[in-house]
Amino acid sequence: MAKQINTKQLIQDIKDGNRFALSRAITLAESTRLEHLEAAQEIIKAFPPSTNSKRIAITGIPGVGKSTFIESLGTYLTNQGLKVAILAIDPSSSLSKGSILGDKTRMEELAKNELAYIRPSASNGSLGGITSRTYEAMLLCEAAGYDHVLIETVGVGQSETLVNQISDLFLFLQLPGSGDDLQGIKRGIMEMADIIFVNKVDSFQEKLVKDAKVDLARSLQFLPTKDSNWKRKTILGSGLKEKGITELWENVLAYFDQIHTNDYYLQNRRKQQLLQAETYVLEMIERQTKEELKQKPFNDSIPNAFQMAKEWLENK
Amino acid sequence: MAKQINTKQLIQDIKDGNRFALSRAITLAESTRLEHLEAAQEIIKAFPPSTNSKRIAITGIPGVGKSTFIESLGTYLTNQGLKVAILAIDPSSSLSKGSILGDKTRMEELAKNELAYIRPSASNGSLGGITSRTYEAMLLCEAAGYDHVLIETVGVGQSETLVNQISDLFLFLQLPGSGDDLQGIKRGIMEMADIIFVNKVDSFQEKLVKDAKVDLARSLQFLPTKDSNWKRKTILGSGLKEKGITELWENVLAYFDQIHTNDYYLQNRRKQQLLQAETYVLEMIERQTKEELKQKPFNDSIPNAFQMAKEWLENK
Repeated sequence: MAKQINTKQLIQDIKDGNRFALSRAITLAESTRLEHLEAAQEIIKAFPPSTNSKRIAITGIPGVGKSTFIESLGTYLTNQGLKVAILAIDPSSSLSKGSILGDKTRMEELAKNELAYIRPSASNGSLGGITSRTYEAMLLCEAAGYDHVLIETVGVGQSETLVNQISDLFLFLQLPGSGDDLQGIKRGIMEMADIIFVNKVDSFQEKLVKDAKVDLARSLQFLPTKDSNWKRKTILGSGLKEKGITELWENVLAYFDQIHTNDYYLQNRRKQQLLQAETYVLEMIERQTKEELKQKPFNDSIPNAFQMAKEWLENK
Repeated sequence: MAKQINTKQLIQDIKDGNRFALSRAITLAESTRLEHLEAAQEIIKAFPPSTNSKRIAITGIPGVGKSTFIESLGTYLTNQGLKVAILAIDPSSSLSKGSILGDKTRMEELAKNELAYIRPSASNGSLGGITSRTYEAMLLCEAAGYDHVLIETVGVGQSETLVNQISDLFLFLQLPGSGDDLQGIKRGIMEMADIIFVNKVDSFQEKLVKDAKVDLARSLQFLPTKDSNWKRKTILGSGLKEKGITELWENVLAYFDQIHTNDYYLQNRRKQQLLQAETYVLEMIERQTKEELKQKPFNDSIPNAFQMAKEWLENK
């Protein structure tokens, strides 16, 4: 027998600031069982949608220092009394949970902070399957009052597109000495970026760092302007040495000022919500179709997969 | 007006060994337009499904020497008068075409060989979207008489699962000195592997290479046996020095002997065909749903994406 889910209690507990209740709600959202997702959605619906939170995507290749940077930024924000949630999308987690736990333990100081909430978010399912529940995790964190949501992802291509579809601001971390050749995946990510933070500048030669800034500025001018009309900014700093974090945050605030003023903030969120609704529709139809396929299997005397699919659809 | 597709002519040209016709057919299969896919399927249907081809997935992390290895293996096979097709799945290609062209030019010698056909295969669409057409490309190559199909993919997780679903044999390339810790993505890939080729052995110290073999043997014994009942093999060699290729191919032949004898070959292909049919069904339903969403948009006065989706589905 399935365990009864007391959504009313969970809603009350989340309102009371109970972090375990928040974690439990996110776990429900991440479940592959529809009734669990429904319960998580009940909880989400009980809170008014946030119209003032900051959803910040943070990405960069492995080794760029994302965890240390996020620890540094998170501490900077909690020191101001702000509540910060950190979600990590791990595109590899369909095969493994390894690196997620690695990330979690690397943010040791922040994890102890009462104003911070850290949560890895599994992207269950592989190609063409049910997508990540980072969106729901984010809404639940906002419901629990964490109105600064940092969404961390690894720079390998697909997860960036996903995270770009659920965030307000896209922050790209990179290392000095890799600024002048915008090719391939990197160009794609750079087009999504609003702010580029050149990390670990203390570990590189001064000339290299200066060159990086010049090269980046040159590269960025060839990229199309985003719908927000925001001009991409480059900031030099170091997560480890807590350098550049104040300048970064000033730029983040300027960005949010601008997109609140020109209404991009709400327009973009509305667009993202429609995209998310489409994802839900496709997911539910996929779920239903798979159920139908179980009830009524293919005619496998047909020696061609496409033909098999077409006949099944015709006789459905 | 859409250009008329002469499938009859294409079928005849492919029968006549015209490689441009094969390329054109694969391009049709990769198109996002349904009528193009239908035309490609018409061509596929005109040829009897292969029951004797060898579909070999080849994967490994960037830097392991895949292209050189494939060039070496491909040359070995064409020297025996065998026809070889090489397909490359590039998971990053939704953002960039960069590395695909890189791979193609790296196999310069093989590209000039009349018995070899090299084709990069774009995985169009990102998460949750329309999947790769490598399956169709493979069937078309077989139709054109290339009954050895090498499918190359990069070891980052998702594309391996995809390629495992369309191949008979899974070949994993790795470097010496990384054998004893099967974690995360690597463990997942290793579970799929039938043969492990330790590449570039000439570039490493002898002791390291020997250790690699021992470590691998130890790791492999803890992995579950595959349905084929084949015992995973490790082979040491070098793509660049053409070392170990003969031993590898003997093992490949032994593998195919075994799976023909125990009927795994046909059972597995049948299973893969059903999976492929399911993919087609889901894709066509997704296509249709997206069309319906265009005709009848969401009620976006609802401030919650999940609710929006549910109401749309109820009123559909």
